Order: sequence, then structure tokens, then C-alpha cells
Amino acid sequence: MPIDTIDRLASELEAETASVSADVDDFFARLLTPPRDGRERLYEAMRHGAIGGGKRLRPLLTIAASRLFAIDPIRALRVGCAIEAIHTYSLIHDDLPCMDDADLRRGKSSVHKAFGEAEAVLAGDSLHALAFEILAHQATHDDPWVRSDLLLELARAVGPSGMAGGQMMDLAAEGLRLDLPAITRLQQLKTGALIEYCVEAACIMVKLPAEARTPYRGYARNIGLAFQIADDLIDHSGDESAAGKPTGRDADAGKATFVSLLGEDRARQQAGVLVSQAIEHLSDHGPEADLLRAIARFAVERDH
Amino acid sequence: MPIDTIDRLASELEAETASVSADVDDFFARLLTPPRDGRERLYEAMRHGAIGGGKRLRPLLTIAASRLFAIDPIRALRVGCAIEAIHTYSLIHDDLPCMDDADLRRGKSSVHKAFGEAEAVLAGDSLHALAFEILAHQATHDDPWVRSDLLLELARAVGPSGMAGGQMMDLAAEGLRLDLPAITRLQQLKTGALIEYCVEAACIMVKLPAEARTPYRGYARNIGLAFQIADDLIDHSGDESAAGKPTGRDADAGKATFVSLLGEDRARQQAGVLVSQAIEHLSDHGPEADLLRAIARFAVERDH
Repeated sequence: MPIDTIDRLASELEAETASVSADVDDFFARLLTPPRDGRERLYEAMRHGAIGGGKRLRPLLTIAASRLFAIDPIRALRVGCAIEAIHTYSLIHDDLPCMDDADLRRGKSSVHKAFGEAEAVLAGDSLHALAFEILAHQATHDDPWVRSDLLLELARAVGPSGMAGGQMMDLAAEGLRLDLPAITRLQQLKTGALIEYCVEAACIMVKLPAEARTPYRGYARNIGLAFQIADDLIDHSGDESAAGKPTGRDADAGKATFVSLLGEDRARQQAGVLVSQAIEHLSDHGPEADLLRAIARFAVERDH
Repeated sequence: MPIDTIDRLASELEAETASVSADVDDFFARLLTPPRDGRERLYEAMRHGAIGGGKRLRPLLTIAASRLFAIDPIRALRVGCAIEAIHTYSLIHDDLPCMDDADLRRGKSSVHKAFGEAEAVLAGDSLHALAFEILAHQATHDDPWVRSDLLLELARAVGPSGMAGGQMMDLAAEGLRLDLPAITRLQQLKTGALIEYCVEAACIMVKLPAEARTPYRGYARNIGLAFQIADDLIDHSGDESAAGKPTGRDADAGKATFVSLLGEDRARQQAGVLVSQAIEHLSDHGPEADLLRAIARFAVERDH
């Protein structure tokens, strides 16, 4: 890629990230107005987790993918926020003392540290249900086939065949020293399934035939793995203030990661290959795919 | 009601309960076949929670309501199992040490006692997602409008406006000594919303116009409260072996209940009034409503 193209993509990505982050915050701030009937603390805990933090990578991906098909940005944002609600619930439950026991998340205290464990369980459960409520609402799409399909595929990406199943694999992996295929499979479920759904959702919204979805699925699978390698590199580097969360946990728990298996240099190289392949999948597209290209291009360069 | 009618309803209810319980167990046993890839323990924990226990009141209600409209029993069972998956997830999370800290559930050890806390969090989360996956599948209903509506209303019944919101109210109520309207509102969210959904789901499946749903909503609301009073009476009685779970918890936590507010006799009387009203709502129906009548009639007589 020529330098001026890279510069243009970088500044486009920066502007879009800021804009999507503001839109996601605004969406949750409106949706999560605390009622005055004994549920205030639940809503405050949900707001603490959902508003003002994170890279908003998932809604950004959905919005970027929706540009390929000129999908109404308001609807793409709703889908992105449903996905972000799921991601936030998973972080809240992951941080619980019985899971990763993390005090810090997105640069502030984790939900259970700020509100208590029971509240964190309920806030996670509430965001989980809310994601489905957002998608099922007619405002997300007029076509009930599309809504039903969005819901089915989200449930698959999130449940025991997806994210939750991957979390269990991760739990079971402690001390096992998995090999590369096993780690790839684990990460494909734990983080890949939801990232792939971000792009798949745009395909569902325009009812793209299954055979036409291959390049987008290829793109999503490649960047899902590239992001995971980038995460492992950050965890390995040990810079907690850049990460906004505790680092070095995987090594402490005796868990294999892409970095522990490949070494830092080869892991970085592998992420680069995945990014190139991801961008290659978009070769039939013109400027409408630039945001997806920018996300891939900078996926492995981030330090947090 | 004449004695011979009561006897007939009682034996019909007993037979239906046994049949639905077997069908629900069978459904989950097929659905939750443990894969051999590191997720075995998650599936075992889900099976422990979902198979072989409980009164299966919620699927029974959905199946009973579906008889009013001659809905395909296989589809009604799917919806009932989705609801039971939600109910089971809520019990697993409720029993966690940071929530009710219960070692016993449905007459056996709670999921976190048998499998560990992290596994219990993930098993609950997995059953939560699975409920939406079951509903969103085309096998539940051919009409995508129906599926989308089933999903929307389930998400509402389960999330912060429903069950999870009621659980937060319950948490916030410790030591507050709520009054009767406040307890009624709390229970309407915590347990009522999902029970009402069991009947609403049948109305959704036949696309019954909103104005025609009034009697069924009245029935469901009345028995939801009657069940809660029955639960409070069991908790108050302190018979753990009959209850299959720890009793006396509400009193220990200084929580108001229908029994602590009304006294045992008036609580029992109030439950009787609710049951009569519930049955009254079915007066336009003939024998096709007998199972719903039987459920209501015996709601307050059970000892577990």
C-alpha cells in the first residue's frame, strides 16, 4: 500500500472510531436510563460497563461492513450496539473473582469492584438479554426474516457453540499447553465467533446468498485471529496502563498463547500475513471497503 | 368445582406433568450432547442444571396454553424448553455464592457445588443464549414474524425490564421491609414476567390480536402471583426435603414476603382468590382449557 493511502486510511479510521464510540455511548446512555424503583444500581452497573470505554471494534466492524452494501447507518449502529452489549456482558462476567478476578477493565474499575459481585452477575445477564431485545425490535430491520436470522446467528455465536464454549475451553486449558491448532480453535470460538458475526450481520441484513458471503467470512476470520495475536502481544508486553486491564495473566496461568507458541517475532509476522489475506478478500470492492481495510491494516499495530 | 371434576383434573395434571417432564428431559439430553473438545465440562454442567429436576411448570403452562389454539405440540414443546432453559440459567446464577449461596437445588447439589463457580457462570450464560437459539430456529415456527416476536417478548421478560430487574429489586430489598404493592411489583418482574410469557408465547404463535389476549394475560398474572405465594408458604414452612432447596432464606435475610406481610392464613386465602380469578378468565373455553384450569387449581396446594 502506498504511504499516502496508509495515511488516509489511518486518519479515516481515527475519525470513524471517534464517531462510532460517541454514537455507541449515546445509544446506551439513552437506553439505560435508570428507573426509580429499586433497579437503579443494576442500571448504573450496566452503564459503568457499557458506556465510555473500549475500542468499540465490534460496532465499528459492523458499520464498516454495512458500507459495502449501503445499509442504513442507523440500523447498522443498532446491530453494532447489540453486539457491543454482548461483548460488554462477557467482559463483566470474565472479570468476576471466580473467572479472571480482574480489578481493572477499560482503564477503570471492573463492574464487580465498583458495584459488587451479585450486581455484576445481574448486569452481565441483563446486557445479554438486552442484546437480543435490541435485535428483535422492528427498528433494527423491517423484514422479520432478517431479524429472526440476525437473532439465530447471534445466539449461535454467543452460546456453547461459540463464545461461552470458547471460554470453557480456555478454562479447561490451564496447565495443558495446547498446540497451535487447539489454540486457534479455542480462540475461534472464544473471540472469533462474535467478531465474525459483526461482518456476517451485514450480509444477513441484505440477505446476501450464502455463496456470496465467502470473501466477507474470510476477511472476518482472518482479522479475528489477527486481533487475538495482537491481544496476546499486548498481554505479553506487560504494559497495563496501555492495555487498560491486567496483563501477563495467560503466562501466569500457564496458558499457551500465539505468542508463547510462536515467539514474539513470528507471532507478529503471522498477524501481518493474516491482515494481508483479510485485505485481499476485499479486492472486488472499491472505496466502500476502505474502512474495513483500515480496520485490518491497523489491527496489529495498536498498543491497546 | 364438583369433587369428581377436581379428581379428574388432578389426575390429568399428574399425567401431563410426567409426560412434559420426560419430553423436556429428552429435548435437553439430545440438544446437550457433550462435544469432545474441551467443552465437556460445560455441557455436563448444563445437563446437571437442565435435566431431571424441577416441576417443569413453565413448559407445562406453554403446552397447556397452546391447547387453547390447537398449536402443534412439538412446537409448543420447543418454546417451553426455551423458557425452561432461561429458568434453569436463572436458578444456576441465583445459587452462586455471591447471590443466594445455595448448595442444594431441585433435590441435588447446585451447579457451582458440583462443577465449580466459573463453570456455573458459563453454564448459566450458555443456557441463556441457547434459549434464544431454540426460539430463532425455523423448527419453532415457519412464520418469521412469529419467531421475531417470540424472541422480542422473551428478551423483555428476561432482561432488566423483567426477571433480571426483579432480581435486582430483590437484592436491593434486603432489610428494607417492602410493603405489599412493592413486593407485588418485585415479584411481577422477578418471577411473574417469565410465567406470563409462557402463556403469551401461545398467543404470539397464533398471532392473536392484542385485544383478544386480555383473558390469557389475566390468567397468567393471577397464577404468577399465586405461585409466588405458594413458594413463600413453602419457604416459610421450612421443609427443605419437600422444597428440594434451602428454606427460610427470606426471613433470615430480613426480606418481606407475602407470608411475612399477610400472615400464613391470609396469604393462603389470597392465593385461593387469585386461583379462582385465574380460572374465571378461562370461562369462554371448554375442555381445551382444562389443563390450564388444573394448573391453577393445584398451584397453591403443592408442597414443593
